[in-house]
Amino acid sequence: MNRREEIMLAAEKSFTMFGYKATTMDQVAKIANVGKGTIYTFFATKEELFHSIVWKMVEEMKDVSERSVVVGASFQENAHARIMQVLKFRETHQLFIKLIQEEKELRTPAVGEVLKTIEQEILKYIASKIDRGVAKGELKPCNSELIAYLLYKSYLALVVDWNRTHDEQLTEEQITDVLNDTIFSSLLV
Amino acid sequence: MNRREEIMLAAEKSFTMFGYKATTMDQVAKIANVGKGTIYTFFATKEELFHSIVWKMVEEMKDVSERSVVVGASFQENAHARIMQVLKFRETHQLFIKLIQEEKELRTPAVGEVLKTIEQEILKYIASKIDRGVAKGELKPCNSELIAYLLYKSYLALVVDWNRTHDEQLTEEQITDVLNDTIFSSLLV
Repeated sequence: MNRREEIMLAAEKSFTMFGYKATTMDQVAKIANVGKGTIYTFFATKEELFHSIVWKMVEEMKDVSERSVVVGASFQENAHARIMQVLKFRETHQLFIKLIQEEKELRTPAVGEVLKTIEQEILKYIASKIDRGVAKGELKPCNSELIAYLLYKSYLALVVDWNRTHDEQLTEEQITDVLNDTIFSSLLV
Repeated sequence: MNRREEIMLAAEKSFTMFGYKATTMDQVAKIANVGKGTIYTFFATKEELFHSIVWKMVEEMKDVSERSVVVGASFQENAHARIMQVLKFRETHQLFIKLIQEEKELRTPAVGEVLKTIEQEILKYIASKIDRGVAKGELKPCNSELIAYLLYKSYLALVVDWNRTHDEQLTEEQITDVLNDTIFSSLLV
């Protein structure tokens, strides 16, 4: 591991434990066991360091999601697998959890901005899969940005929000059934 | 206007201006120009008073929504009109705006609970219209609770959330087109 990677690992630890607002470059330097000056040779500001780490997390999320794809499976099966992985990542990755919590409790603007960027990356990722499905002739031409948005928000509603107001969560079968009947069926050729 | 109505009007004013947390029974008494004892003959607690006012607001919201219905229009046209009215009410009714703001900024538990109850009332209202459509043979039998949830959350996503991350809002035509192609088309016989 090189110096830069060591610093990023230390910063990720600090952001995960204390959040963005409460993390200082001094803390990161201490955890990384380097001088503060060394950090500044790689990252000009705490924000830049934060963005590098979040970017790495987003790439990791896409990798994990892509690994759930089954060759030969239908568009909707793979879209379902990908989005469920994204949601699982969102609910289990410690830094992601901390960011959502910090946004809710402290409304730190830098964190709010980063969460928006992450959502936009997820939406671009889903839209690119729809575009590819259209290019391959599997799906009808459509407004992929709008459909990606509706699809992702529907998953968030059924997998995450539903549980806030209902004692029993929906089964995965109920979720795939309703989305196959509605959004997915409208896409298929 | 009777005493009870006067007190409710005063309380609505106070909740709208100061929020739930910052409203006291003393304030309400002052605005209503009655003694605090008089209030307690009608409402045992501030919470009870709050619930009465919110309940009245929900009934008003349903009335406004019902007035948008066009006799002879299709299920999806009337469902669209009803839900758009609910969202408009949610974004223009001063007490509703204050409650959403108070929840976001102060996370007052009593307000969070009441907002959940309002959402459940909206969902029950939409589900009852779906059930009636099924009973009349206009719609396929379906899990109306789940479809109402997906429909309402989709409207919230496209009408409200979209604007937080996009400069241009979606047109009403784009919204009806995408929902007619997906959720509504799955419901029609």
